[in-house]
Amino acid sequence: MIDVGINGYGTIGKRVADAVTAQPDMQVVGVAKTSPNHEAKAAVKREYPLFVSSDDRVEAFDAAGIPTAGIVDELIDTSDVIVDATPSGIGAKYAEDYLEAGTPAIFQGGEAADVAEVSFTACANYDDAQGRASARVVSCNTTGLVRLIEQLDEPFGVDRVRATLVRRGGDPSQTGRGPINDILPNPVSLPSHHGPDVKTILPDLDIVTVGLKVPATLMHVHALSIDLNSEATPAEIRDRLDASDRLFLVSDEMGIDGAGKLKDFALDAGRPRGDLWENCIWAESIAVEDGELYLFQAIHQESDVVPENIDAIRALVGEVDAETSQAMTNEALGLGL
Amino acid sequence: MIDVGINGYGTIGKRVADAVTAQPDMQVVGVAKTSPNHEAKAAVKREYPLFVSSDDRVEAFDAAGIPTAGIVDELIDTSDVIVDATPSGIGAKYAEDYLEAGTPAIFQGGEAADVAEVSFTACANYDDAQGRASARVVSCNTTGLVRLIEQLDEPFGVDRVRATLVRRGGDPSQTGRGPINDILPNPVSLPSHHGPDVKTILPDLDIVTVGLKVPATLMHVHALSIDLNSEATPAEIRDRLDASDRLFLVSDEMGIDGAGKLKDFALDAGRPRGDLWENCIWAESIAVEDGELYLFQAIHQESDVVPENIDAIRALVGEVDAETSQAMTNEALGLGL
Repeated sequence: MIDVGINGYGTIGKRVADAVTAQPDMQVVGVAKTSPNHEAKAAVKREYPLFVSSDDRVEAFDAAGIPTAGIVDELIDTSDVIVDATPSGIGAKYAEDYLEAGTPAIFQGGEAADVAEVSFTACANYDDAQGRASARVVSCNTTGLVRLIEQLDEPFGVDRVRATLVRRGGDPSQTGRGPINDILPNPVSLPSHHGPDVKTILPDLDIVTVGLKVPATLMHVHALSIDLNSEATPAEIRDRLDASDRLFLVSDEMGIDGAGKLKDFALDAGRPRGDLWENCIWAESIAVEDGELYLFQAIHQESDVVPENIDAIRALVGEVDAETSQAMTNEALGLGL
Repeated sequence: MIDVGINGYGTIGKRVADAVTAQPDMQVVGVAKTSPNHEAKAAVKREYPLFVSSDDRVEAFDAAGIPTAGIVDELIDTSDVIVDATPSGIGAKYAEDYLEAGTPAIFQGGEAADVAEVSFTACANYDDAQGRASARVVSCNTTGLVRLIEQLDEPFGVDRVRATLVRRGGDPSQTGRGPINDILPNPVSLPSHHGPDVKTILPDLDIVTVGLKVPATLMHVHALSIDLNSEATPAEIRDRLDASDRLFLVSDEMGIDGAGKLKDFALDAGRPRGDLWENCIWAESIAVEDGELYLFQAIHQESDVVPENIDAIRALVGEVDAETSQAMTNEALGLGL
């Protein structure tokens, strides 16, 4: 069994913890938090040993009646691998601690690429990450782009990608974020950083991205234009995308017009927290004109990187290959809607 | 003086009425409405003779205490030109009435292109519309695209346009429309109809558009990728766009991040109803990579077609050329922020 420590138990950390627990070859040895909030209480209910970010924070947990198992340094020492799911920028501060303790570490996409030895998406570069001291699972949007491009590239060849990312303003729980009733070019200077982030995984790809923020919380939506270097019909493309468990082809007859119905479907299907680990691609949107493919996909920002974190754990400290790891992850979580 | 009748006194009709009144060479001889709602009351306050869509509706206006001047047939007969601003699809039903009365007519972009002899955007094809029996001012989004492309094409050459239209779900007063907290591919089948609509004005253009609807009411926002066939720097492009009174270059130092601040600015500037007749283009977003231009523009769906309607009136029944008409319209309304 791989002993996994999770530093940061928020949106990503809590999902990764449950996903680790679902796997046959790994277990959670502890999760670490800074504040004794509702997520800390939930961690205790789920019986995850709860570590505190520093000694001087223990008192706050005691006061809140939340039992703790130690401080994060101890968790780092006792784990085979650490998944860092701290807020953006905090992971970089912990990087040296992980290195000094000799504990391999997985960072999230909110960190700069140089936080880790390699940026990671399972379908694209699992092998590059094997045996490394650190890997960075790229952001939700980048993960969604890489998965789609990889699936198309092998059979059809991808020459050029242009993507408009219509991004949710914040997660459902991020009540301090906006916009309300507005459409914000964001970032306003073009192109956006998402294209270069994809290139940390696919360095030779011609990709340009632009982003906007809108008053929605459920999912991001991407409008994509992709130049293919071979002829492919929409039917062939649909078949290809449908074959991947990390892509969910939304068929016309499901009557799903947006993220609200996608989330309803995931909740009805019994998905934990209504998570959609897959890229959700509208089959009806897939069109080809003069070798240029168009499509829409929705990306669940809270969960699409969760299976990638599991695969990253195996890449760093496990003993299976890329295909086996992804199949194990998919099977244990129940991917494939 | 050109006697202008306006059939339909809603979002567009009421704005066109005020814009006609502001011109030195035309006047409103009446506006027509179907229901005695708040806009009908406002028309009376503004002293526009109010015509009713049919005899059997007069009673409803009488009951509401709203004085009427006759029925719409009489307005059509006495006008030199009719601006049809009825809801989408209704204009087509009136088309024969206008023709039979021998009254030149201007339709809006909600009608199919074949409702009129020519589709119209002043900067692109004023001359084609001169002396015609009918013209159709294309939709707000199409108008915004044509204006931008025209301004770029002459100096730099436009080879290909790819546009993602992030559309407001409804106008501020359209309380029955959504989405709330969602991002809807709309239309989900690609490409969208906006590209073909641009081609009713610029038939040889290589343009593909996709559209989404989001929970915002103030303005649309376009993310554009435009292949130029000559080298141009961002500074040259900014200068060129800044030179047109129907384009408003939003400079970085204004601190305008979206439609909310744009509307505030328009209201602070004393614009009637806070209208933004110009395409609002973020200067900071203008970037060029390998001959490919990127930019963001916001389009005020309630008002950008208003100056185009004024120019269409002159094209159909006036005696001035394209340049003179646009200059007159801009001067009378006060375009150029």
